[in-house]
Amino acid sequence: MNSNAGTFLYPEFISMAHLSEPSFVERIRASFARQNAMHLIRATLPVVEEGRTEIHLPHWEGVEQQHGFVHGGVVGMIADSAAGYAAMTRVPAEASVLTVEFKMNLMAPADGEQLIARGAVVRSGRTLIVTRAEVFAVKGGKESLCALMQQTIMVMHGKGEK
Amino acid sequence: MNSNAGTFLYPEFISMAHLSEPSFVERIRASFARQNAMHLIRATLPVVEEGRTEIHLPHWEGVEQQHGFVHGGVVGMIADSAAGYAAMTRVPAEASVLTVEFKMNLMAPADGEQLIARGAVVRSGRTLIVTRAEVFAVKGGKESLCALMQQTIMVMHGKGEK
Amino acid sequence: MNSNAGTFLYPEFISMAHLSEPSFVERIRASFARQNAMHLIRATLPVVEEGRTEIHLPHWEGVEQQHGFVHGGVVGMIADSAAGYAAMTRVPAEASVLTVEFKMNLMAPADGEQLIARGAVVRSGRTLIVTRAEVFAVKGGKESLCALMQQTIMVMHGKGEK
Amino acid sequence: MNSNAGTFLYPEFISMAHLSEPSFVERIRASFARQNAMHLIRATLPVVEEGRTEIHLPHWEGVEQQHGFVHGGVVGMIADSAAGYAAMTRVPAEASVLTVEFKMNLMAPADGEQLIARGAVVRSGRTLIVTRAEVFAVKGGKESLCALMQQTIMVMHGKGEK
Repeated sequence: MNSNAGTFLYPEFISMAHLSEPSFVERIRASFARQNAMHLIRATLPVVEEGRTEIHLPHWEGVEQQHGFVHGGVVGMIADSAAGYAAMTRVPAEASVLTVEFKMNLMAPADGEQLIARGAVVRSGRTLIVTRAEVFAVKGGKESLCALMQQTIMVMHGKGEK
Repeated sequence: MNSNAGTFLYPEFISMAHLSEPSFVERIRASFARQNAMHLIRATLPVVEEGRTEIHLPHWEGVEQQHGFVHGGVVGMIADSAAGYAAMTRVPAEASVLTVEFKMNLMAPADGEQLIARGAVVRSGRTLIVTRAEVFAVKGGKESLCALMQQTIMVMHGKGEK
Repeated sequence: MNSNAGTFLYPEFISMAHLSEPSFVERIRASFARQNAMHLIRATLPVVEEGRTEIHLPHWEGVEQQHGFVHGGVVGMIADSAAGYAAMTRVPAEASVLTVEFKMNLMAPADGEQLIARGAVVRSGRTLIVTRAEVFAVKGGKESLCALMQQTIMVMHGKGEK
Repeated sequence: MNSNAGTFLYPEFISMAHLSEPSFVERIRASFARQNAMHLIRATLPVVEEGRTEIHLPHWEGVEQQHGFVHGGVVGMIADSAAGYAAMTRVPAEASVLTVEFKMNLMAPADGEQLIARGAVVRSGRTLIVTRAEVFAVKGGKESLCALMQQTIMVMHGKGEK
């Protein structure tokens, strides 16, 4: 879950890890840690890379709709956040991002043991960033696409997250 | 939670209430009761009328994003559900509805003691229903519009919710 | 095309007209006049008011799709422009507007002698303006709603249209 | 414009061409030929393949907006049509398709000698098909992405285009 997990064993490696790791990773992990709503639904953020992230969500009772699938709104939550954090990898430390709008097609029931939302930047400008996300349901180890999202993100310069 | 709560005192009124209450109200309340995700975020459905519903959400720690406002994805959840249930007031008992897609603009921080999502049907066809939702933040008794959604719902004939 | 057409007869009234008419009306009419694509489809802009505009389109052969209705893309053109000009009524003269994105539901065939697109501002901020548009088909004098649009507009400060 | 142009010289090849060419190509070309609005803007449909199409648009005066770029609504027209015809490659001859809704981000001015809209099917169900389109501006032989669209198409079974 945490890519720095092994660093406790190799203290001399910690600083190198921090030198080589892009500064956005730490900022984004800290931001995600402050999102209570992500913890409420038990989402995690195992992947943060230049221009893309992944949010994982286990299928559990609390996030279900009336048919026992994951609620479409919860699918929207992880898609919105995955794409928003993908955008955040492209902004300077002294800036933050916010979702202007998103549009999502729910194409199949979110039916599986786990959902994976993959967010990616399509085009980044100084003020606006356009992103996409795909959400996959993982069932018996097999991924199937269940939702597609297109999103607009605004960059708030000079307003970094504290 | 149940607007018929007082009818236990007036048994002769119960049947009249049920006669006069549209059948969709009971079906929609039963469906909402089965949506674990709505309970997880503590949403309620106090208004169900022909072509429109309201979902209310108290502002509490669990639904916050990193700045202490309600998470945009949670705003999307209640907007999606409010509009979806508005659509469900227009379909026969032996049919169910599902969200094909929705598009939402987040126009202001969801900042207040409570959020109110108002969903309404714009146009209902046999197979597709177009809806809208507005989400208001209530602060000190004053409502301000914080999100606007446009949604497409599909009617599944012959597949009523059990 | 120009609602001030009669003012040539009453020169003493011209200046009053210009004093009372909001300055955005002239800027918007000049901008519309430079949009070749609007003339290509024979669209006109008969209404420009604070926060709202109307674009009219006669039904003629050139804008039809394969079933003889007005092409959905043409419906999108007039909805996008009507809402964009509604946004332009809210920005200073030294600024221009551009469409960031729009989402449109086509709810019924655009079947009639004329289409009317009504654009309106939902919320205007300094940088972004959220708008809506409804498109009506007029048949035998009766309007019916055929499309619904939700749009995000960006304000370009310091870049007025020349 | 027509990839069969040479077949007049080789009549013995015509039938082979028709045997090997998927039947949807002919239907789609016939449908496009009936779209007056596509001819009005001078769009062509040079590519029709299983699950994807391309519409090309020369930059000419008639499709410009006030800054001399191609009008955003015209960009929407070719994106909508390219994706809609991509969907039509997946439906039987006795069915037709119509656009339920589309959402488009305009990410850069449509600035170039030509625009290319590439439509593709993301997921096709019996009743609904989800598609995407990307629009590129070609300038000095170099393509740059200027718009991104996500669309929902409905299949009308038993209602083929005549």
